[in-house]
Amino acid sequence: MSIKAGLVGLGKIARDQHLPAIAKIDGIDLVAVASRNAQGEGVNNYPDLGAMLAGEPDMDAVILCQPPQVRYQAARQAILAGKHVFLEKPPGATVSEVDALIALAKAKGVTLYASWHSRYAAAVAQAKDWMASRTIERISIQWREDVRHWHPGQPWIWEAGGFGVFDPGINALSILTEIVAEPITLLSAELEVPSNKQAPIGATLAMATASGAPIDTVFDWRQTGPQTWDIAVETSNGRLLLSEGGNTLTLDGEVQLKAPDEEYPTMYRRFVGLVANKAIDADTAPLRLVADAFLCGRHCPTADFED
Amino acid sequence: MSIKAGLVGLGKIARDQHLPAIAKIDGIDLVAVASRNAQGEGVNNYPDLGAMLAGEPDMDAVILCQPPQVRYQAARQAILAGKHVFLEKPPGATVSEVDALIALAKAKGVTLYASWHSRYAAAVAQAKDWMASRTIERISIQWREDVRHWHPGQPWIWEAGGFGVFDPGINALSILTEIVAEPITLLSAELEVPSNKQAPIGATLAMATASGAPIDTVFDWRQTGPQTWDIAVETSNGRLLLSEGGNTLTLDGEVQLKAPDEEYPTMYRRFVGLVANKAIDADTAPLRLVADAFLCGRHCPTADFED
Repeated sequence: MSIKAGLVGLGKIARDQHLPAIAKIDGIDLVAVASRNAQGEGVNNYPDLGAMLAGEPDMDAVILCQPPQVRYQAARQAILAGKHVFLEKPPGATVSEVDALIALAKAKGVTLYASWHSRYAAAVAQAKDWMASRTIERISIQWREDVRHWHPGQPWIWEAGGFGVFDPGINALSILTEIVAEPITLLSAELEVPSNKQAPIGATLAMATASGAPIDTVFDWRQTGPQTWDIAVETSNGRLLLSEGGNTLTLDGEVQLKAPDEEYPTMYRRFVGLVANKAIDADTAPLRLVADAFLCGRHCPTADFED
Repeated sequence: MSIKAGLVGLGKIARDQHLPAIAKIDGIDLVAVASRNAQGEGVNNYPDLGAMLAGEPDMDAVILCQPPQVRYQAARQAILAGKHVFLEKPPGATVSEVDALIALAKAKGVTLYASWHSRYAAAVAQAKDWMASRTIERISIQWREDVRHWHPGQPWIWEAGGFGVFDPGINALSILTEIVAEPITLLSAELEVPSNKQAPIGATLAMATASGAPIDTVFDWRQTGPQTWDIAVETSNGRLLLSEGGNTLTLDGEVQLKAPDEEYPTMYRRFVGLVANKAIDADTAPLRLVADAFLCGRHCPTADFED
């Protein structure tokens, strides 16, 4: 029996990624959409989650694609109604929210899936395997993109709690915490915050693996032209480069794998499997590192930015 | 057999609280001190933890009283040497550090005690019992003190990662997360940061219990005269006031209990019990809420402050 799913928040990420992935995958069907301003095609439409829950008693799961600031209350409402929940990343605006949702989902016996799409990029699993048998000596992360291209008309990303450049940066952290087996800790951070914004446009993080290998990281939202989403790893036995956001793997200078992005279809296959077992998959490690960066980060005011 | 303990960081908190408590409690003896500048009386003295570990092979436990920025590396070193560890609060500079220490202590089979001294204030246990049978309607926290009095000559508290007013404020959060049974989430925060400092001197937090009761919180480090450490709880069946940092309990306007501070002796009794069972007691909930406040907090510049 296919999962009957309702989606909340019919914005750019929902149209670009979720709807095509759900249409492609067996085992899940979209039956309803809740959105203040937009209408889904070929499904029942509701103005908000409460109306959708009331109108779709047979719905099994809810997919939450709204901005993270409002995701917690919606997730709580859905779990209390006994629905399985798929959370776009980041899974919440705070770590304590996600921990509260995990406790609630356990108590209600429903699936909670905190999706980290970059972990499903084509080359990530192979990179993890390659690293498992090697000693990490150093990791360098460069995550540079053009905010005007990727986040047009999304003022919430610049507000307090909107994550700023950590919105893409958390993708790098989600890959990092997937491919490195040891715990990772944050040592220090510098946050470049435009004078007319509340969230950083650039950040440098110094992290380390538990055994002490340094992890130098640069996030920047001011990169025009070619975009950079690279994780470079030096080990005792060779060099690894994950580029294109995890979709290209280069080992010792030789490209091993270069595959198109299949992140969202892969995530929906995983969600179908989780729901079958009422299992929880909600790793907060990437979000904890972001919170830690804000906790111990030095604020460096920088020039006004008009998006 | 008494625990043989070594203490690292012979500063104000160690002299004011740890040494008298250890002297008072059965089951633990101080055998060594590691400090760059100070000397403990009647014990072996070392310049740093490495020298102390080398010089005291029979030492069972290490008590870490340095500033939180350097506590993680020391705790890791002590755990890897097979020692039980007592952490002053906060247990680390970041959430990811403490989670990494918990994993390491589990792997090594040693005690890790993340001490939250305010949880052992005289009236906290009774307050928790009273609240357990009532429905919380609203909580108000006022934590106002004079930083010049309590933190003379501690420039690290004003640096990035030094917590600022959250250094005392986390005590309130440690009591809050002890007496409220439900998960607590942070909704929003305002952080007042002096223009010449990196850490906040004042903060307002809006939090909520999972079932929706609001928790309004003010932390302020500019209070001269009488100091205020109050948690007021309105319930469906009466009003509770925890004052004096948890040492006085008032129910519906009647003082029920007013006892002197016995926090540190109580904590050392608990540590002796934990070590006997090689148990871990390291709740990160208060630290998570602080990280969340920095993550989603609005920075409000305020006047320069000279301490």
